[in-house]
Amino acid sequence: MKKIFVVGIGPGEAAYMTPAAGAAIAESDVVVGYTLYVELVRDLCAGKLVESTPMKKETDRCRIALEHARKGRTVAFVCSGDAGVYGMAGVMCEVAENDPDIEIITVPGITAACSGAAVLGAPLIHDFAVISLSDLLTPWETIEKRLLLAAEADFVICLYNPKSMKRRDHLDRAVEYIAKSRSWETPCGYVKNIGREGEYSRLCTLRELKDNEDIDMFTTVFVGNSGTRVINGRLVTPRGYQI
Amino acid sequence: MKKIFVVGIGPGEAAYMTPAAGAAIAESDVVVGYTLYVELVRDLCAGKLVESTPMKKETDRCRIALEHARKGRTVAFVCSGDAGVYGMAGVMCEVAENDPDIEIITVPGITAACSGAAVLGAPLIHDFAVISLSDLLTPWETIEKRLLLAAEADFVICLYNPKSMKRRDHLDRAVEYIAKSRSWETPCGYVKNIGREGEYSRLCTLRELKDNEDIDMFTTVFVGNSGTRVINGRLVTPRGYQI
Repeated sequence: MKKIFVVGIGPGEAAYMTPAAGAAIAESDVVVGYTLYVELVRDLCAGKLVESTPMKKETDRCRIALEHARKGRTVAFVCSGDAGVYGMAGVMCEVAENDPDIEIITVPGITAACSGAAVLGAPLIHDFAVISLSDLLTPWETIEKRLLLAAEADFVICLYNPKSMKRRDHLDRAVEYIAKSRSWETPCGYVKNIGREGEYSRLCTLRELKDNEDIDMFTTVFVGNSGTRVINGRLVTPRGYQI
Repeated sequence: MKKIFVVGIGPGEAAYMTPAAGAAIAESDVVVGYTLYVELVRDLCAGKLVESTPMKKETDRCRIALEHARKGRTVAFVCSGDAGVYGMAGVMCEVAENDPDIEIITVPGITAACSGAAVLGAPLIHDFAVISLSDLLTPWETIEKRLLLAAEADFVICLYNPKSMKRRDHLDRAVEYIAKSRSWETPCGYVKNIGREGEYSRLCTLRELKDNEDIDMFTTVFVGNSGTRVINGRLVTPRGYQI
């Protein structure tokens, strides 16, 4: 059977990539991915054909993977974090829709919600929502509605893509929506460059997420629920155990 | 510094446990955990003191870990999946609140939302909410409110603890709430015993999640959003790329 592995390599450091991800790359003839991610697994690519493409060429990358698979080559398509959370596993299935003889296998990885939460402590211990603030592919009205309802539901909220070069004010607007049903003093936190050189994290309040120049496109943001608190410098959402 | 690692070992199979999790166990003098999870890492426990306790004794397990750490022993407290998603990382921080000299380090793992999504295809490619249907520690009214609002927000919804021996009807009630703002034909799926012997998955509609005797307490359930569809037997939520 022809195979494309869509592989989540985790945050970047080898210590957080699963053996299953390494095995999928080892089994493959071709490694496809965004240049930066391919560099993170360069050690595993010896003797393989490597096809790296610049950012934003997502469907092109899928087509390259598909072409190799059609020729009978096993392909590892690498993504950072989890291939199934805002990753390439979905669009790869869409692009290969007319090739039912090619098996698409998702190899999960540690997504930023989980790796970032670990850095901050334990914010995701109770029900949570994950929302991307990128409006490149999603109408802003949809994002806004999700923010409002997630806040109303008292979910812990994890925000991906809080800012970009072109979108400086999305996080500020998101914080305003969340604050409609959550205290400005809600404990929050954010982590930059998770599991990579320059990893940096900070705890703050919901108010301090606004007008925050420190947060950039490589940052993952966590907003606590109504019970989240800071214990010995760690952001902790209680599950409800009697202590 | 005195240390307790709260370690997510992933779904069970060694291929899905990160090297960081293995290293934390290797560095520890004592391994603490629920009996079943300790068995999954038994190979790594040679020469270590192992303290396994039966289910539901979560705070007792934390106190055992704390007592060892107070005596200067490095502890690995093992959890299945991710230690930070409905895991022990939170309650461990709470139990150790008066011991600020003990460092609590969360080691993330692959949570069932991610490992289950990979088995089904790519359902979590867009914004999603994770909700536990267990009302042991959370009032049912809170769970109900979250289900209603998550459905209204068109989140993909991942349900943990859909049933237990005592709670047979929670999933049926959850499905009724979700159906208030989502079609009964919405593509859904579920996975049992993820990454363990007897792994089994099935795609179905929202309607078919109701009165479903196949789903048990070891199952993770996925409800698609309004755009989720089945492509070559895989559950896929589009991100919005032009194909």
